[in-house]
Amino acid sequence: MPKLRILSKHEDEYNNLIEAAHLPDLEILPTPGLDANIIFGEPNLIRDSLASFPALAWVQASWAGVEPLLDSALRRDYILTNARGVFGLLMAEFVFGYLLLHERKILQRLAAQKEQRWDATPTGTLRGKTIGLLGVGSIGAELARAAKSFSMTVRGFTRASESCPDVNEYFHTDLPAFASGLDYFVSVLPNTAETRHIIDRKVLHALPKHAIFVNVGRGSAVDESALVETLKTGSIAGAVLDVFEQEPLPAEHPLWSTPNTFITSHTSAPSFPQDIANLFIENYRLYIEGKPLKYVVDFENGY
Amino acid sequence: MPKLRILSKHEDEYNNLIEAAHLPDLEILPTPGLDANIIFGEPNLIRDSLASFPALAWVQASWAGVEPLLDSALRRDYILTNARGVFGLLMAEFVFGYLLLHERKILQRLAAQKEQRWDATPTGTLRGKTIGLLGVGSIGAELARAAKSFSMTVRGFTRASESCPDVNEYFHTDLPAFASGLDYFVSVLPNTAETRHIIDRKVLHALPKHAIFVNVGRGSAVDESALVETLKTGSIAGAVLDVFEQEPLPAEHPLWSTPNTFITSHTSAPSFPQDIANLFIENYRLYIEGKPLKYVVDFENGY
Repeated sequence: MPKLRILSKHEDEYNNLIEAAHLPDLEILPTPGLDANIIFGEPNLIRDSLASFPALAWVQASWAGVEPLLDSALRRDYILTNARGVFGLLMAEFVFGYLLLHERKILQRLAAQKEQRWDATPTGTLRGKTIGLLGVGSIGAELARAAKSFSMTVRGFTRASESCPDVNEYFHTDLPAFASGLDYFVSVLPNTAETRHIIDRKVLHALPKHAIFVNVGRGSAVDESALVETLKTGSIAGAVLDVFEQEPLPAEHPLWSTPNTFITSHTSAPSFPQDIANLFIENYRLYIEGKPLKYVVDFENGY
Repeated sequence: MPKLRILSKHEDEYNNLIEAAHLPDLEILPTPGLDANIIFGEPNLIRDSLASFPALAWVQASWAGVEPLLDSALRRDYILTNARGVFGLLMAEFVFGYLLLHERKILQRLAAQKEQRWDATPTGTLRGKTIGLLGVGSIGAELARAAKSFSMTVRGFTRASESCPDVNEYFHTDLPAFASGLDYFVSVLPNTAETRHIIDRKVLHALPKHAIFVNVGRGSAVDESALVETLKTGSIAGAVLDVFEQEPLPAEHPLWSTPNTFITSHTSAPSFPQDIANLFIENYRLYIEGKPLKYVVDFENGY
């Protein structure tokens, strides 16, 4: 009999959403529910009591990032699935919101408005610009789709895969060559040993002076001191940063006031409970039929 | 022999672009070139010398709006074509730039950044929201396509046509019913006798309190005093206005400082010379083959 424990700050909401699906055979356990074989919820909460569930078979994380569960000191005798497929469209909203803010000079026009000044400065356009996506998984693919819908040219940087139809040109090695000539450079990389500080001084310096860097992946992929220097010297035109090596970004961090930098608070792709509950429901149906689950995380790769 | 006169503030640029196309039989006349049978350029400039071209057969306007040429006191013994098909994507950038500014709380997050404050306020999303397009011609269709790509629901208001596949629901009468329940209400209406002040107090009051009104069509479609009142009383959440009854918007006009109002200076869809030259080149090839031209304006309808 499948027994579910929900470990989430939205426990009541998730409980209602999952109950409303009338899933066959499922028993949702109240606290502490230590005989659960399924856990659903936030990786940081799950991590704290991971050792307390002897019958654990499957964890469905409500986030995309499952770093808290990847520590090699933690048990790995269960199937870990994360949240995927629901964040791409939300991240596209974030990324294109800031790209359009830049092209359409929205802040400049707002300043003109405050002076009651008719500002007929010509606008820019995304059409024909080149966007480079560092990472082309489900999120990158959604960004590529949105970029094509605005008639942009899309470069994708991946380890090997070339499966996204909206990417015009793939790169697999030589990140500076990939960065060279981009108008927009967007990282969606997860936090893994391989991605740490992959966006370094050399990569940032390969970007054109008019380029904008956007990070909606993980902060660990960026050498932040190199980024601060790059922005301070004006060697790129700006940055939009939703993720950082340390979050919340410390109050004294230089990035808060680095020129032409937009700081957001890891809000580019919120987990809307209905979306995440639907992922669990979909995977649960596979689980009870003994079929392979979707969105299984490889503990070694980290995604 | 086709003889072209270019009447444009970008005359040199258009001259070069059209010459580069090596169009058969075309002679481009220098000033004054009064024996031209084709004129290409800006409607306001063309209007001033319209009577001076006895052999005039065809005018290709470089703008979408051809009001200067529609005055019933002016000659109508020629074919008038306007610029279409090139503005939709640019207008989509404008409209979705401001919609995303709103949903993603970009200005609020910028204010938090200035205080070095980590602001984890949840973001909104366009997904699932309803946009109403008042006018679904080539521009409205492009807005509908962009809206669907962000997973919005699309309502279209037209006189009769229902040809856009990205519109979920059409309305043809009862504008207040159309407005009711919209999250975003976007007018792309041209300036005609029928559209004058069609967006009146009754229509604006039918919008929900959280709705945003966007005008990228013509200012004459809106009763501006009703709009000012609607915004001042907070009966809608905001407005994004690129066009006005009088342009440039006079310095003392209340809209400059009406609450929650974004004023831009008729810059939502600039005419990029290459785009417009391409329209002329395309139509010229039809013209010399004696085929029907594209984008012919009906002097009575006004579009």
